[in-house]
Amino acid sequence: MTQPPTPDYRHRRVPLEEVSERVVATAMGREPADLIIRNGRLVNVNIARIQDGTDLAVRDGIIAFVGRGGHLMVGARTRVVDAGGRYLVPGFIDTHDHVESSMVDVRSFAAGVLPEGTTTIACDNHEITNVFGLRAVELFHQAAQGLPLKVLVAMPVCVPSIPGFEDAGAAITAAEVARAYAEGWAQLQGEQMNFPGVIHGDPQCHAITRAGLRAGAVLTGHYASLDLDPGLPAFVAAGMTACHEGTTAGAAMRRAELGCYAQQRYGTAWLDMPSTIQAVTGNPGLDTRFFTLVTDDVTPATLAGQGHLSRVVRAAIAQGVPPIQAIQMVTINAAQLLERSRWIGTLSPGRAADILVVSDLVKVVIDQVFADGVLVAEHGRMAVEFAGHAYPGWALDSVHLDPLGAGDFRIPAERPERVRVMRLHPGQVHTTEEIHRLEPERGSLPADPARDLAKAAVFYRHEPRPGLTGSRGLGFVAGLGLRPGAAYASTFAHDCHNLLVVGTDDQAMALAGNALIEAGGGLAMVVDGRLDALLPLPLAGLMALGSVQETAAGLQAVEASLRRAGCVHDSIEMTLSLLSLIVLEELHLSNRGYVALRPGQPPAFVDLICPQADRLDPGSTPVSIG
Amino acid sequence: MTQPPTPDYRHRRVPLEEVSERVVATAMGREPADLIIRNGRLVNVNIARIQDGTDLAVRDGIIAFVGRGGHLMVGARTRVVDAGGRYLVPGFIDTHDHVESSMVDVRSFAAGVLPEGTTTIACDNHEITNVFGLRAVELFHQAAQGLPLKVLVAMPVCVPSIPGFEDAGAAITAAEVARAYAEGWAQLQGEQMNFPGVIHGDPQCHAITRAGLRAGAVLTGHYASLDLDPGLPAFVAAGMTACHEGTTAGAAMRRAELGCYAQQRYGTAWLDMPSTIQAVTGNPGLDTRFFTLVTDDVTPATLAGQGHLSRVVRAAIAQGVPPIQAIQMVTINAAQLLERSRWIGTLSPGRAADILVVSDLVKVVIDQVFADGVLVAEHGRMAVEFAGHAYPGWALDSVHLDPLGAGDFRIPAERPERVRVMRLHPGQVHTTEEIHRLEPERGSLPADPARDLAKAAVFYRHEPRPGLTGSRGLGFVAGLGLRPGAAYASTFAHDCHNLLVVGTDDQAMALAGNALIEAGGGLAMVVDGRLDALLPLPLAGLMALGSVQETAAGLQAVEASLRRAGCVHDSIEMTLSLLSLIVLEELHLSNRGYVALRPGQPPAFVDLICPQADRLDPGSTPVSIG
Repeated sequence: MTQPPTPDYRHRRVPLEEVSERVVATAMGREPADLIIRNGRLVNVNIARIQDGTDLAVRDGIIAFVGRGGHLMVGARTRVVDAGGRYLVPGFIDTHDHVESSMVDVRSFAAGVLPEGTTTIACDNHEITNVFGLRAVELFHQAAQGLPLKVLVAMPVCVPSIPGFEDAGAAITAAEVARAYAEGWAQLQGEQMNFPGVIHGDPQCHAITRAGLRAGAVLTGHYASLDLDPGLPAFVAAGMTACHEGTTAGAAMRRAELGCYAQQRYGTAWLDMPSTIQAVTGNPGLDTRFFTLVTDDVTPATLAGQGHLSRVVRAAIAQGVPPIQAIQMVTINAAQLLERSRWIGTLSPGRAADILVVSDLVKVVIDQVFADGVLVAEHGRMAVEFAGHAYPGWALDSVHLDPLGAGDFRIPAERPERVRVMRLHPGQVHTTEEIHRLEPERGSLPADPARDLAKAAVFYRHEPRPGLTGSRGLGFVAGLGLRPGAAYASTFAHDCHNLLVVGTDDQAMALAGNALIEAGGGLAMVVDGRLDALLPLPLAGLMALGSVQETAAGLQAVEASLRRAGCVHDSIEMTLSLLSLIVLEELHLSNRGYVALRPGQPPAFVDLICPQADRLDPGSTPVSIG
Repeated sequence: MTQPPTPDYRHRRVPLEEVSERVVATAMGREPADLIIRNGRLVNVNIARIQDGTDLAVRDGIIAFVGRGGHLMVGARTRVVDAGGRYLVPGFIDTHDHVESSMVDVRSFAAGVLPEGTTTIACDNHEITNVFGLRAVELFHQAAQGLPLKVLVAMPVCVPSIPGFEDAGAAITAAEVARAYAEGWAQLQGEQMNFPGVIHGDPQCHAITRAGLRAGAVLTGHYASLDLDPGLPAFVAAGMTACHEGTTAGAAMRRAELGCYAQQRYGTAWLDMPSTIQAVTGNPGLDTRFFTLVTDDVTPATLAGQGHLSRVVRAAIAQGVPPIQAIQMVTINAAQLLERSRWIGTLSPGRAADILVVSDLVKVVIDQVFADGVLVAEHGRMAVEFAGHAYPGWALDSVHLDPLGAGDFRIPAERPERVRVMRLHPGQVHTTEEIHRLEPERGSLPADPARDLAKAAVFYRHEPRPGLTGSRGLGFVAGLGLRPGAAYASTFAHDCHNLLVVGTDDQAMALAGNALIEAGGGLAMVVDGRLDALLPLPLAGLMALGSVQETAAGLQAVEASLRRAGCVHDSIEMTLSLLSLIVLEELHLSNRGYVALRPGQPPAFVDLICPQADRLDPGSTPVSIG
């Protein structure tokens, strides 16, 4: 069964129209198959039935025959696999996935997820597009060529997240969206996050919608509010086919009711599915074709340790969903969402031969993975090996900052001041705003580790531009527990991915930041005034060029360093990466300064120094004013 | 509720991308709706649930909101409809329909089916394309413009049915298929009838497949064999997404299993659904998304008297299918087949407002029909009236024959001969071959009404071409019961639609034929030597320009005339129209003569006169030699 790894494996994928005669000849038994899998238990997602004793023939990467295959022709080069009664399952499809969150490039990502049964992703490469703009979409598309993983690029449409309040490396316009479709770089629309813009009639949002609909693209959405009506139906009315932001059973059900695919999320940190799935488990007889499962964001550690969609399907089954229904959610339902069910999502004739041989359907134990009929993974390991992409210089050179000094973190003050502070809530996406009184030291407001108050800074780090280069926002953050002399720096800071530095000491902060400026981006930790851990992410400052496993190890080293520095929370880097995500409530930091977002109000800049007497820090007890 | 008929109503249909801001503004209640339907019981086909107390808002023909609509804005021009607890059902979609079989043009057809709840058809205009070739596809597309009925033109790909054995008005090539897609005249592929060609690797068939797949078109098929394996999977492997030729429960199930939509047929004469539906009713819990219902061919009489898809849904419910599941088969399932579920097939935001207000879900009593938000029919009658299409002269001038004389039907013979005879089986599509002995009269073999042997003739009647004009095939037919002096003529004779004349008297046959030559095509009956009934079908010799009701009356007059002439079978004209369909078993007549098709054998010409001694007519008892 095994085949030796070939380090420069290039995957061949032939459209049906070029080989229909050959595929048919194999189906009829006139010509040999490339691959025959005998005696499987077909998980037939078309009709939701398991069919024992099924044989399956493949030619040119396409399924030629499914059924009793006694007539099939075995040639000298036919690979015959005895499934021995194991299950034959269609390859899994993730309809909403940010590859960058796994901190590896799309080729390493492919090698990470294929052994876990994921054979297709719709990838919203939103993060790298914030760094490089439209050329990142083209780059991503190019890098995905020749992979056994099918990569549908979902055009990022919200770059930057809130124009005017932050500076990304680029801004995406409706004209660029149209161009990405016309050039074939993008196949669907990534998440439309500006749902308030859509439902309140923002012309730019609708121009982007228009570009997508004109191109015939499926549009995906991000309706991140618990106020379902009338906002959600209005959002769907704008052409949004799918949304992954339903976090409750009712929210998922309302989406499906409205003909909007409920993309139930189960990533590393955002674990909505156990709630949303109750819409299914609590409603026997429901037609579940509009329910899917997605990962959205998974860390390399999750990928390496627990899997990808395999983990999500397993978790859904554990919640009481029948295995075949859970599998439909990542196969035929997902394919119909993408309007690609003539190609993927079912083990049926004429479709791509993306086949999982599964020995335990409940535990989702995947023995073999075939992509387009080629055995690409076996028992959790890749069976083929492909070269990395030769990224252009600009893609590896995205941190455009001169070395920092302690002075770059100075907050001049001549007397005690009341300052705004972002309180983190590990594992949650929002912050709360607090006011604390700080005493100046040598004319600057310092961090105060004794009160768990760290300093935070966000530096514009993209392509040099007058007025932007040198811009920075400064603030304070509570809730990390960092000891004196510690600093954390990251160029993976949503959504603009500027350089974020958090620390208890200006010198340590400069040291951490400089480590990343030198490394071309990544994550860095300084403990006790010395560089303690560094995970270089040279591709756009977001992604490593190594494997998922290597990157997971590097990330774990940073996490260990964070613990040494006093921060005890798991995967705190995910929470930290949202410190600059100004579309979230309540107080966040961009390169232009503090941005406040309060429920039902538009975003607004607020000052670091809080002059009002009504916002008091009563001694050492912080007060939330949310 | 009613609106006065406007004789030149032109339907407006706006794509979502042009009006998304407006639709959203209505959904949010910021701007008035064009139409609000309150207090309906939503038949929610997305999740297979009925939801009471549903309000629905429409703007610019698009559904803006579905849910509890207390916030919706009512303006001065908002039409508010109180559904009073009646059901709101998505407009029905017929994914396989030959308009020509209803003997009216697409505009009259629309007026016939809209009151019956059919708001979308995928129309395979195969018949008219046999007459005029590619320009018929363009013509059909043009004639359908401005109709409230959504017409997706399915490109005919089997014209003529068997090249070399008959002469149609045109032949369709792969290049023409590609052109029809490129020009936007066709939106999907019509039925690929040459399934033997597909599965046995005919290069022309696969060239046509290639053209369709390259254009991204959904391909529909016609696999008319009870031998399911391996032929059916091989056919599906060539890219066939749907097939309406499954006539048993097993055949329908095998299609769905293979990811090929089972288009269960329930036309006027071919009534497969009560058998096929047992695949559903006999398998509780089956996922039925790959099951649909289609009409294929319905006469104007069926349309006028019993309805269209309304009749089919009603019949499916009578077979035990739950109403919502039957409705899914002509709404969301059909829309997903067509890959148009973002547009049609569900009452969900952003979709076309094709809405049926139904007072009885089991009997399918349709009170109102809205197409793109416009009330187009009410209580079985059209509420708007649209002008006919201005057909070009060539489309109304398709019977290119000089007047016939009795001599044109002469079968010279000097002595008694044993002749091949086609035995009709009313209501079935095949014939059986018989041999009868005939005595010559005045040097020609005559019909013999005493033994129920009529003469049959097929004349090439299309665009004049050397070698074809003047060609005719002559034969005999048994089983009609025609009395002396009777003749039936028709230019609606599958698939080439040449002039078919059947009669008991050469003079009567000439008279019937000449009536059609003069009328530009249609159906004619001669009884007792006089023209007794005439239904002109001037459009391509296939379709009337009047209404469904008028055409049904004209057809009934022909049927009454047939009864007067001694032929007692119901709808015998449908069976007669297949006398020249040489893709059927066992003996048929083309303009080139007799074509025999025997099981498992290729078609072959056979002589009218049967010289072999082993094929005997033992006196008056005919012997089938099938």
